[in-house]
Amino acid sequence: MKFMKNAFWPGRPASAFFALLLICSRAQAQSDPLPSWSEGPAKQAIVEIVKATTDQANPNFVPQEARIATFDQDGTTWVSHPIYTQVVYCLERVPAVVKAKPELKNVEPFKTVLSGNRAALAKLSLKDLEKIAALTLTGMSVDAFKAEAEKWIASAKHPRWDRLYTELTYQPMLEVMRYLRDNGYKTYIVTGGGQDFVRAYSERVYGIPPEQVVGTAGATKYGYDKSGKPFLVKEPKLLLNDDNAGKPEGIHLMIGRRPIIAFGNSTGDRQMLEYTKAGDGARLALLVLHDDATREYAYGPAQGLPGTKIGAFTQALYDEAKKDGWKIVSMKSDWKRIFSFE
Amino acid sequence: MKFMKNAFWPGRPASAFFALLLICSRAQAQSDPLPSWSEGPAKQAIVEIVKATTDQANPNFVPQEARIATFDQDGTTWVSHPIYTQVVYCLERVPAVVKAKPELKNVEPFKTVLSGNRAALAKLSLKDLEKIAALTLTGMSVDAFKAEAEKWIASAKHPRWDRLYTELTYQPMLEVMRYLRDNGYKTYIVTGGGQDFVRAYSERVYGIPPEQVVGTAGATKYGYDKSGKPFLVKEPKLLLNDDNAGKPEGIHLMIGRRPIIAFGNSTGDRQMLEYTKAGDGARLALLVLHDDATREYAYGPAQGLPGTKIGAFTQALYDEAKKDGWKIVSMKSDWKRIFSFE
Repeated sequence: MKFMKNAFWPGRPASAFFALLLICSRAQAQSDPLPSWSEGPAKQAIVEIVKATTDQANPNFVPQEARIATFDQDGTTWVSHPIYTQVVYCLERVPAVVKAKPELKNVEPFKTVLSGNRAALAKLSLKDLEKIAALTLTGMSVDAFKAEAEKWIASAKHPRWDRLYTELTYQPMLEVMRYLRDNGYKTYIVTGGGQDFVRAYSERVYGIPPEQVVGTAGATKYGYDKSGKPFLVKEPKLLLNDDNAGKPEGIHLMIGRRPIIAFGNSTGDRQMLEYTKAGDGARLALLVLHDDATREYAYGPAQGLPGTKIGAFTQALYDEAKKDGWKIVSMKSDWKRIFSFE
Repeated sequence: MKFMKNAFWPGRPASAFFALLLICSRAQAQSDPLPSWSEGPAKQAIVEIVKATTDQANPNFVPQEARIATFDQDGTTWVSHPIYTQVVYCLERVPAVVKAKPELKNVEPFKTVLSGNRAALAKLSLKDLEKIAALTLTGMSVDAFKAEAEKWIASAKHPRWDRLYTELTYQPMLEVMRYLRDNGYKTYIVTGGGQDFVRAYSERVYGIPPEQVVGTAGATKYGYDKSGKPFLVKEPKLLLNDDNAGKPEGIHLMIGRRPIIAFGNSTGDRQMLEYTKAGDGARLALLVLHDDATREYAYGPAQGLPGTKIGAFTQALYDEAKKDGWKIVSMKSDWKRIFSFE
């Protein structure tokens, strides 16, 4: 009753108005779903497409089941410099595998890997790396592989930060994933990395279950152990090379729908971003630019972008992004915070 | 207050007890999630595993993200007799494709298909059918294929019932799918049929989105049309033959977890059922037996199962089912109703 009386006091409406303003601005600050993002065109584009696609009154509304967002991993959701995490895994697995197969001890490229000679390691060819991958990623059951990969990723650290690789995920990207899921999107990792490798930690690290990881995948072979128990063995036979054109092809195979939103950071993501952007209605393609040498890395050749060193993406990719309306995400200026531990 | 007084009336507790009983039994009747299933070991096994895997206090509890159930399609969730629906689709597509490629008019096996000669059609070899499949399922964009398949399935009818194929789904299986989803399970179709074909109607018919259809899949190829717009073409190159051992292999590729529950009806489902059953904790494998010639079909050779004609599954499969503890679902005795229109 006191409130009712006060409401008629002439000074009340104005102060109530300011109080309301204060409450609203606080509520907004509290509920900013992307607190690690600076205000700017990238953040704005993300918020705008989510609003448009989730509002039934909007012409770009997308029913929940078609809300698909895809994320490249290396360089897009976690650090991939100076060497891909999975390559480190393969190299570190070599001693254990050679111990079980001693006939490989003096066979290249395994001999070089065992030597630990960094200069020689740096010179390994792509073909050498493929041999190392075949040795360390195949020939065991899918369950044994999963257990090994889980164990390794739980303790392996990046030398620069002396932190687990899984801590070197980008906080702004984790926020985007959560924000999209809160708005009915299904989030997928679409990686050139090994599908089974990423599945070993995707749920824990990204909140993305194994069935939403699309990656480079080898065949498996069904068989029985001595006791007659069935199991699947990882075969050294490539089924899907999930990079470049393999990304949209993998998306079709595993998801069967065109993404509404896609994030990448390199030429390996070009076709996924093109394919996403070419869909009907609202679509958003974003490229993460590694231009922060202090907090992370600024890598790749400086190819004439004024003021930034652009990296794993080329001038041609940058030009296509501009022409096709993709958003550039500058780690330096768009991200207030890069890692959760900062 | 009146209630409080009545509660002390000697006759009250008993009548309240009966009223409560009545309410409970009504609620149970109303909420039976599997009304088309007769009481029996199959229904009981389904209800029991759902209770066990969703009850945190149960030693067989399964966290929601690991609740995966897989369903074969042809003969398990809809009628596949006398000929697989997708084979009908391929045969009926031949005239339109040959019209666009008249040079095939006198080439076998297309010539035979165009002749409409039933006796000759029945003699087509597996190799002929593969040629027909390659002609009618590849060479177009994934979007064009989807549009064609959607259009066909919306009007194609089964000659025996003169009803849409999509109406010939088994009502008890639709109930199981819904019941499992209501209990946090992700439901998948795992079919020897074409992945893209089944995806064209799976959401509408089964409530299963395209990304939860695992099927026989061909490669696609990324390219650009004349205006520079990217698209994916269906290639005549097999990536995954999702039958027999290909089922667990496809499950690993597309889902990455072992199912808790799997349904099949033939030798093509054997490995999927074995693989499911071999997992830790509670697992359930079920085989649908086509033993109802009146309401559906009783097909396959009568191979000595007393009193039933067993079909697309062999005596060896039946023996394995018994030995390994799979449940047999008799269409005749376990299903009160087969189709929703009955």
